Amino acid sequence: MQIEIWSDVKCPWCFVGKRRFEKALETFPHRDQVEVTWKSYQLDPDLPDHYDGTEQQYLAERKGIEPEQVQQMWEQLSAQATGEGLNFDFHSVVVGNSFSAHRFLHLAKSLGKADAAKEAILSAHFEQGKDTSDVDFLVKLGAGLGISEEDVRDTMSTGRFADDVRHDIREARTLGISGVPFFVIDRKYGISGAQPAELFREALDKAWQEANPLVVVGHSQDGETCGPNGC
Amino acid sequence: MQIEIWSDVKCPWCFVGKRRFEKALETFPHRDQVEVTWKSYQLDPDLPDHYDGTEQQYLAERKGIEPEQVQQMWEQLSAQATGEGLNFDFHSVVVGNSFSAHRFLHLAKSLGKADAAKEAILSAHFEQGKDTSDVDFLVKLGAGLGISEEDVRDTMSTGRFADDVRHDIREARTLGISGVPFFVIDRKYGISGAQPAELFREALDKAWQEANPLVVVGHSQDGETCGPNGC
Repeated sequence: MQIEIWSDVKCPWCFVGKRRFEKALETFPHRDQVEVTWKSYQLDPDLPDHYDGTEQQYLAERKGIEPEQVQQMWEQLSAQATGEGLNFDFHSVVVGNSFSAHRFLHLAKSLGKADAAKEAILSAHFEQGKDTSDVDFLVKLGAGLGISEEDVRDTMSTGRFADDVRHDIREARTLGISGVPFFVIDRKYGISGAQPAELFREALDKAWQEANPLVVVGHSQDGETCGPNGC
Repeated sequence: MQIEIWSDVKCPWCFVGKRRFEKALETFPHRDQVEVTWKSYQLDPDLPDHYDGTEQQYLAERKGIEPEQVQQMWEQLSAQATGEGLNFDFHSVVVGNSFSAHRFLHLAKSLGKADAAKEAILSAHFEQGKDTSDVDFLVKLGAGLGISEEDVRDTMSTGRFADDVRHDIREARTLGISGVPFFVIDRKYGISGAQPAELFREALDKAWQEANPLVVVGHSQDGETCGPNGC
């Protein structure tokens, strides 16, 4: 089963959604036959590499979101993130264009390290206040993932993997994706947003059942139903 | 649009799910064209009409659920129920077979009072500690709904509507339903469990869009995505 996930490095729900999806996948009996592909998406492709201001200033200036509204949004987001074991620190977030980070992720993917890189870069951005456009930082991040300094510097100093990033974004447009995270199963089912793990699990079951009609798969259970064995 | 909801009188998530579904329906622009049909389902068809014991004893004895586990379950359930404006009182719940209650509900349905009856009987069971197998109580409940005493007594003393209850349960089996609440839209989409209102709303939108292809509907938004204008 092919699962593609469009997501941006600078998208908090993408991190929350990643956790919820992983939780669903963990309980999915056919998880060994699931291949996950991370796809690039940019919420704000027009940002400079380094934006001169805080996340709050950025949201006020470029998105017109009032500080109180931002505060409310962050509180809600942080609560949901905490529920998934994440520790968001919005006040330390470094604002900038995510294009370099996406090229780095494609480099990692080419070396079979896509998932670990995605996790590391989201954590760096949302939990550790790191500048994921900074080449020296990416070199350090790469080192932790077993990616050579030469590979990272070479990728960053040239336009390497830029076409891959653009290709992902074009594909998203073709599929009608206008927000992330967005999960696509077998190019058949689309799931928009950081849905509950139960919903992901149900979608996995449904897609599996359809692709494997001869295998009788038990009805998906989520936490909020009652069945013969209790609630 | 046809929406069928399989549900049991003795199923706490069914009550929570009813509220969440109603919340979604309230905001749905085409709600006037939605027809909701309540369908019978029994979590424990083998129970006697009146079980001699508390809900906790029942869950321990017949489902093998430890008291501490029950307590935890109830706390979680109560919290969710409170969030939907419900006031569950598990300690006063009267345990018994729900078949009579389902026959009563089919009587109400035949008189165009299905929704009010469903609401009243769930509240009676979970919030008011009433015995929904007791004919005298059902007479009282019916009176509040404008159902004559004669109709209730006649239904209860004969096998009236028993076939309707069994028919619903058979249908559930055919559709692969093994837990409730279970929501089916236009016999095309199935939603399992007391999902968030947003999820129900998304399903309504999606089903409506498919059934009305000439109407251009914007991409559905839920709370947990990030788009060009923020999160």
